[in-house]
Amino acid sequence: MSQKEKFFIGVDIGGTNTVMGLVDAGGKILDEKSFATGTRPAPDVYLDKLNAEIAGLIEKNGKKISGIGIGAPNGNFYKGTVEQPPNLGWGTVPVAAIVSKALNIPALVTNDANAAALGEMTYGAAQEMKNFILITLGTGLGSGVVVNGELVYGAYGFAGELGHMTAVENGRLCGCGRYGCLETYASAGGICRTALELLSMENRSSLIRDITPNNLTSEMIFTFAEKGDPIAIDAFNETGKILGKKLADAIAVTEPRAIILFGGLANAGERIITPTQKALDEAVLPIFRGKVKVMLSGLQGRNIAVLGAAALAGHYDKN
Amino acid sequence: MSQKEKFFIGVDIGGTNTVMGLVDAGGKILDEKSFATGTRPAPDVYLDKLNAEIAGLIEKNGKKISGIGIGAPNGNFYKGTVEQPPNLGWGTVPVAAIVSKALNIPALVTNDANAAALGEMTYGAAQEMKNFILITLGTGLGSGVVVNGELVYGAYGFAGELGHMTAVENGRLCGCGRYGCLETYASAGGICRTALELLSMENRSSLIRDITPNNLTSEMIFTFAEKGDPIAIDAFNETGKILGKKLADAIAVTEPRAIILFGGLANAGERIITPTQKALDEAVLPIFRGKVKVMLSGLQGRNIAVLGAAALAGHYDKN
Repeated sequence: MSQKEKFFIGVDIGGTNTVMGLVDAGGKILDEKSFATGTRPAPDVYLDKLNAEIAGLIEKNGKKISGIGIGAPNGNFYKGTVEQPPNLGWGTVPVAAIVSKALNIPALVTNDANAAALGEMTYGAAQEMKNFILITLGTGLGSGVVVNGELVYGAYGFAGELGHMTAVENGRLCGCGRYGCLETYASAGGICRTALELLSMENRSSLIRDITPNNLTSEMIFTFAEKGDPIAIDAFNETGKILGKKLADAIAVTEPRAIILFGGLANAGERIITPTQKALDEAVLPIFRGKVKVMLSGLQGRNIAVLGAAALAGHYDKN
Repeated sequence: MSQKEKFFIGVDIGGTNTVMGLVDAGGKILDEKSFATGTRPAPDVYLDKLNAEIAGLIEKNGKKISGIGIGAPNGNFYKGTVEQPPNLGWGTVPVAAIVSKALNIPALVTNDANAAALGEMTYGAAQEMKNFILITLGTGLGSGVVVNGELVYGAYGFAGELGHMTAVENGRLCGCGRYGCLETYASAGGICRTALELLSMENRSSLIRDITPNNLTSEMIFTFAEKGDPIAIDAFNETGKILGKKLADAIAVTEPRAIILFGGLANAGERIITPTQKALDEAVLPIFRGKVKVMLSGLQGRNIAVLGAAALAGHYDKN
């Protein structure tokens, strides 16, 4: 059977919802469904539910499935495990083995940002690229690093944690317990913190001053920036500056052809791309200058989590 | 012919001397020779000389050579070129093609630190490792990054420039024209600068105060540290601290199993290893803590440049 006629299931285990899709080799989602992940569900109860839902999706569509890919927080590709995922309250759970055994279909696990990078490489803006870094700018900053056409999992399965590079010495407190991590600046959450910091530093009027910090979102800051709000505009410029500067360190390691941005904050388009590219070009070694392009995902607006998980299954399918 | 019975030529084009060796597949240097590189030699004159010397070495030993590997500053693996090498005064020279054509043997080029990483993987401390980073602590800081058992060359051939990650914001002026690059702190030259900075900061007596800065070497600082000189001891601790802290950023990208140190400053052994490991473990994400080991090269005291270049030829030899 040629790769073209194959079908895969992509599953995204999120903190709120679990979403799955039946995807063809060309990246078309033929059918999808979702269910509430639940609050700290017991792993066996949750996985019984997941297996039943996948089985239902397969049965409904009547396609032979070549593989199942699963993206999950702290998914370990090597072991097929999900390990101490934040929000789920699990220990280490051998998700790939349990799903594969129940459905008698090969299953693979990785984290959501890695899956997104595979999705970008298989169906998105990186189809011609052997070396790139995908950055997801959501609540935090996730990343997937591709080298020589393969995802970098590292020695133990947790490579690609660019969100936890130190961007600012003794900087903002991060959820990981350390200070100054890149994701505390460059993410949807980070830009809100930057807006508050800017408000604290100066007296210019700003629409942000009328929003309670608890309600402030990166989307609001974007809307205000589009209206010409100076603090909102500066918040984007500051965010891009820190992101671009820090990406220069990652570029010194793997020299990607592009940095591809995805996620809520990436919806701001040129407002985040332009300052990031500028700071990056100022910060890289002269030999890299002008060579590494900051660009938007080719899958913005599509379900990259499901496509990425399906791409995970397809990428390693050898039959 | 099995890989075991094969022979390779490894060539190290250095600023002062060009060294070459005839190496068997087990990493034994059967014969070696060297000649003065000369001051800014014309590329054609130099390469005629190089080809004649390689031919002489081969003829003398009567072995069939399966490949020639060449390590050179700014060597580009993809193109087989040496591009604007510092000290040689060349433009872009297609070294691999010229050598290969003259001798009718496959030839490959890469930079010296990349070659060293391949040497470490083939004959040294990384023989069992698929993911590691080799750091050469010489005049500057060179690096070779290995992921999934393959060297990372990047999109354009210049990956692995960890010496030019920014270690200190607005820090020391680097030879590359930027400020605060890691190699201005963590290298044989960097530790001398750190010793001077420490002397400037305090009044403790030190043997270093009797050495002119022009004559100060990292070996002297090591000797003084061994004698208990407090500034010399602190210079090593500071160097390891900055190196370990910055390596945490590289670890967030590729998650190596080990950081392997080679070169003049690595001869200091535990004096540099211990503070580097400590700072690294403090700076990495909790999930990496205790997993990434800082260790010495398995080739210290051997000619890693020649072995690495021979390993380059052997690694990509497909016959």
